[in-house]
Amino acid sequence: MPKAATLVIENDPATIRRTVLAARAAGRRVGFVPTMGALHAGHVSLVKAAADCDDVVVSIFVNPTQFGPGEDFDRYPRSLDADCRLLAEAGVRWVYAPPTEALYPPGDATRVVVDGPSRRWEGEHRPHHFQGVATVVCKLFSMVPADAAFFGAKDWQQAVVVRRMVRDLAIPIDVVVCPTVREPDGLALSSRNVYLSSNDRVRAVALSEGLASARSCWQQGGTAAEATAALAAPLARQAIDVDYAVVVDPDSLEPHPGDARSLPAIALVAGRVGPTRLIDNMLLS
Amino acid sequence: MPKAATLVIENDPATIRRTVLAARAAGRRVGFVPTMGALHAGHVSLVKAAADCDDVVVSIFVNPTQFGPGEDFDRYPRSLDADCRLLAEAGVRWVYAPPTEALYPPGDATRVVVDGPSRRWEGEHRPHHFQGVATVVCKLFSMVPADAAFFGAKDWQQAVVVRRMVRDLAIPIDVVVCPTVREPDGLALSSRNVYLSSNDRVRAVALSEGLASARSCWQQGGTAAEATAALAAPLARQAIDVDYAVVVDPDSLEPHPGDARSLPAIALVAGRVGPTRLIDNMLLS
Repeated sequence: MPKAATLVIENDPATIRRTVLAARAAGRRVGFVPTMGALHAGHVSLVKAAADCDDVVVSIFVNPTQFGPGEDFDRYPRSLDADCRLLAEAGVRWVYAPPTEALYPPGDATRVVVDGPSRRWEGEHRPHHFQGVATVVCKLFSMVPADAAFFGAKDWQQAVVVRRMVRDLAIPIDVVVCPTVREPDGLALSSRNVYLSSNDRVRAVALSEGLASARSCWQQGGTAAEATAALAAPLARQAIDVDYAVVVDPDSLEPHPGDARSLPAIALVAGRVGPTRLIDNMLLS
Repeated sequence: MPKAATLVIENDPATIRRTVLAARAAGRRVGFVPTMGALHAGHVSLVKAAADCDDVVVSIFVNPTQFGPGEDFDRYPRSLDADCRLLAEAGVRWVYAPPTEALYPPGDATRVVVDGPSRRWEGEHRPHHFQGVATVVCKLFSMVPADAAFFGAKDWQQAVVVRRMVRDLAIPIDVVVCPTVREPDGLALSSRNVYLSSNDRVRAVALSEGLASARSCWQQGGTAAEATAALAAPLARQAIDVDYAVVVDPDSLEPHPGDARSLPAIALVAGRVGPTRLIDNMLLS
């Protein structure tokens, strides 16, 4: 991806669609990175992963339907100017920053539900979250008909849900899942890390510690139950209020069948560190 | 639409998609008529309505997810060869007749729900019907990315649901709703009319009679309540087992607000004539 001369910000769905289709009709490969803004190095890594594309579109939209009542929709960090500077430096060509009405017109009545992989884990703790994600991503894929879309592995279950939706609805886009970017001490980058007090910032490392420990255990021949125990120990030491800490099949997200170590496995964790809810995961094999 | 030299039958989603995109890239306008086969003159009228397009694609797929338990999925009439002959004569270029797995791959978990306009009437009597319709149409619109899609007004609520889904999900296709085609005595054409015994065939005219009578009443200054009574009378005379017979707003499908005759109105009716469930409707204004 050559560095773009100027970053263009579009707000109108019909314009961004026309623009993307014109680029593709001219033989250019277009990559798409959907975000909620408050961008950090994890998002930049998605833009870099899209570097085999000729042009990159980044959408910035804090999607109300994926937040539950009492969640942090209102105070979710918003920083459009800083985000656009970061994206311009990263060589992004277009930012699509639609108003809410473009995605949820008056009388909006349609939602996309992905039953299987949405049910457990985040789905149990945030009941309408994945319905909100699937619905907005489905709309964004119509508005930004790119060749490929890039998602972070940090939201593993989200990536599985989006991939399943794309397959089931025959949406013509490649879904690329990119590695999680971490702080030097292991904490996964997240727009929500800004919520952490300095004490909670230290405690939060327990999530990635637990995951790394589960992976070591697994790689040394441990069972899923042993890896789960290894994951749980640092969380308990830091008194993290755990929503789930599990070893599952990376695709179905169903609990891993114990000793069947030939099957792929991923450890998922979510918990509250003080008032801040964080999630993380790590492939074990 | 010039008469096509040969009708081509495609079964593969990737092939029909490529074919449609190639036609459009060559500057041709492509029209799409999604059907469940068992074609009659009503379907042919949709093909004719698509005559401003350069090429017409007709899909034939009896969609299992829009039938409820105990409904007529298994015995729904299937007549692919006769259908294709009819479509070849009508100048159709491509028939897309996918296998079930192309639309519902193993592990399929995604459904499209259109809440508002799906809720009442057919939605009450066939609880998952519109979810099945919206889901399959959403998939078909990805596989057959035409300029415009043609639906019959006979399934009015279905047309409203599809239109709403297309708007809400920003699906780039024009939805065109075409007039109902009727037998000389008024009965709306339906693939299910073949189920009627000769006695029930006579009784079934009560639906269109009731609708015509509701329209006369309305056009002579009657209220929504009076038009509803006019609709009900012939149904009662023929002892039709009525599911609903109502006057509603054509877009929201909510009951028409009584005397507000300046607002548009449509009469909807559904009922069982013997063992056969039929639906019909008529715009009143």
